Amino acid sequence: MRDVLVAFNKKAGDAFLERVKGKKPLFACAIGVTETAKTPGISAAGENPDLTDYTPPADVELLLLGKCRCIPGVPVTPEGIPTPALITKAALGLADIPVLVVSGGLRVKPQIPFVELGGSPGGDIKTGKAVDNAEEIFEKAKILGENLAKNAEYLVIGESVPGGTTTALGVMMAMGVNAEGKVSSSMPNNPHELKIKTVKAGFKASNIKFGDLKGNPFKAVSHVGDPMMPAFAGMVVGAAGDIPVLMAGGTQMGAILAIVKALKPEILGNVAVGTTRWIIADRTADLAGIVAQIADVPVLAANLDFGQSKFDGLKAYEAGVVKEGVGAGGACIAAILKSSGKISKADLLAEVEKIYSQLVSS
Amino acid sequence: MRDVLVAFNKKAGDAFLERVKGKKPLFACAIGVTETAKTPGISAAGENPDLTDYTPPADVELLLLGKCRCIPGVPVTPEGIPTPALITKAALGLADIPVLVVSGGLRVKPQIPFVELGGSPGGDIKTGKAVDNAEEIFEKAKILGENLAKNAEYLVIGESVPGGTTTALGVMMAMGVNAEGKVSSSMPNNPHELKIKTVKAGFKASNIKFGDLKGNPFKAVSHVGDPMMPAFAGMVVGAAGDIPVLMAGGTQMGAILAIVKALKPEILGNVAVGTTRWIIADRTADLAGIVAQIADVPVLAANLDFGQSKFDGLKAYEAGVVKEGVGAGGACIAAILKSSGKISKADLLAEVEKIYSQLVSS
Repeated sequence: MRDVLVAFNKKAGDAFLERVKGKKPLFACAIGVTETAKTPGISAAGENPDLTDYTPPADVELLLLGKCRCIPGVPVTPEGIPTPALITKAALGLADIPVLVVSGGLRVKPQIPFVELGGSPGGDIKTGKAVDNAEEIFEKAKILGENLAKNAEYLVIGESVPGGTTTALGVMMAMGVNAEGKVSSSMPNNPHELKIKTVKAGFKASNIKFGDLKGNPFKAVSHVGDPMMPAFAGMVVGAAGDIPVLMAGGTQMGAILAIVKALKPEILGNVAVGTTRWIIADRTADLAGIVAQIADVPVLAANLDFGQSKFDGLKAYEAGVVKEGVGAGGACIAAILKSSGKISKADLLAEVEKIYSQLVSS
Repeated sequence: MRDVLVAFNKKAGDAFLERVKGKKPLFACAIGVTETAKTPGISAAGENPDLTDYTPPADVELLLLGKCRCIPGVPVTPEGIPTPALITKAALGLADIPVLVVSGGLRVKPQIPFVELGGSPGGDIKTGKAVDNAEEIFEKAKILGENLAKNAEYLVIGESVPGGTTTALGVMMAMGVNAEGKVSSSMPNNPHELKIKTVKAGFKASNIKFGDLKGNPFKAVSHVGDPMMPAFAGMVVGAAGDIPVLMAGGTQMGAILAIVKALKPEILGNVAVGTTRWIIADRTADLAGIVAQIADVPVLAANLDFGQSKFDGLKAYEAGVVKEGVGAGGACIAAILKSSGKISKADLLAEVEKIYSQLVSS
């Protein structure tokens, strides 16, 4: 298990790893889109801001079909760096882990089976109107989580929502988590100022201040969140009473933890955050500093290394581009654990390269 | 296991029971609606023909919420006899079996999480245009089935589609299964003549004859089927290569078997039909006579007996009203098997009565 690091809360992290080692997980992927992501300069999850509506459906098509249907090629950053869904796909494929896609609110429907929760695409948080029916999405996702927990031995939940670190910053700040300057970015130059400005505009439009909505996560999501959040948090709350849940993501997981803590704190002992080494190494962000404010939850990281990759698009991950998304880190952790360590980081890179080269050549 | 009967293909049935006894299933429910169901006198799955659009979403709301959201009360026949979803709910609840709802095509969306396959409500088979995109629905359902098979130990698949025995008759006849006078009905007086007339109109509009589409199940479904069918058959084909599948339904299962046989006959050895004693006892229908024409697949039946119920609405099942639907029989079989026989038919009736009385009094 040397390719899984415990980056924060070592004791609880080791205990979590012991609990899920060799077990059979289900990978659920909560997705959504927002107008917030179309703020110029805020998200690199798409070739340009308007294409961010296509990124989540294209990501999950890649997971289930091995190729995208709603766009040609695969989602890329403006510089052409490919989506982390490639990593997730490689990990889940190597370890034969099943996938279930769950929509919190989309504009473009993916051409694969997905769970519909009745949500709508998110608005722009600068208007203070971000998510229409957060509690309804949450309640449906909770029912889903309860049912998934009866068959899967544990859940790994990933996400794809462009602009997600900005909406996460918004919800964390609204709920009293000081995440200013601490959220990560898919860009090498983390646009903290723009994110903070965007959240502050949302606070003004919503007539709220830092910490005002500590006890009201649905209102926080409604004003300054995104539709992925209630889908993700609902599954955690529905499942973690019965089985362990690995929350697969970077600093956005802080917002989910804050929501879960407000609704069902007693299940946090059955939860861990799973991410990539690139998030842990990100000097422009502070995942541990976020988590420490919320709960005694461990942070695990897949010790990925793309430095020796033969593809520049993958090598770029070592320079801090993309870093995480679509549950990439958590999926790698789950693959390593399911194989009891037989799947190594080298195997993961080789598989990512194989998928990438097939997609590039086709 | 005395409350599970092997009604047909005894040896294969006993072997199937041995294979799934004590195992943990997932109950998937494929649903859809059609204009065919609005033919006066063809379906009792709704208080009147126009309400049949509400029956499948209401049924699955009952399964997941314990009550309906899209209609007051529960779906009933024109005579007020309640939906078999009550039986399914009782069985799944007693045995703690998870549920996943899968839509093949709906007009009214259920207020619960459900898997979207991109299908549309079905047309009227009398026009020869019944299902728009049968192959696309099938392919998505197949991907879903492949993924479900990685966590569940076996699948139980039920259905809710009003008018379903007529569309089943259509597909079976188109594929060369002589099902004339053999399909069951939710009404005590089985309207065989009306069903045959409806199918014949569909054949004329489609310019096909008996058996013409033996090798082309998608075309058969497109002309004279319903959108539940490709969702159901896709899951069977996706899952049964890896895990056993109990097809939970009555004579409609003949159409699914014919579709599966045309696409992947080698998996039929891992499949059984599971229904209620009321279907086996139905002298107006012939499930075994249908199955025998298609494949060496066993037919199992839950030995339910509502004769001593304190509710007239449930006692009516003994008079041949409703009989089956929403996977009621298969869900009872799965509950009995999961509990290794500890859950008896008396327990099932008691639980159905408990749920029914709560719903009637509220």
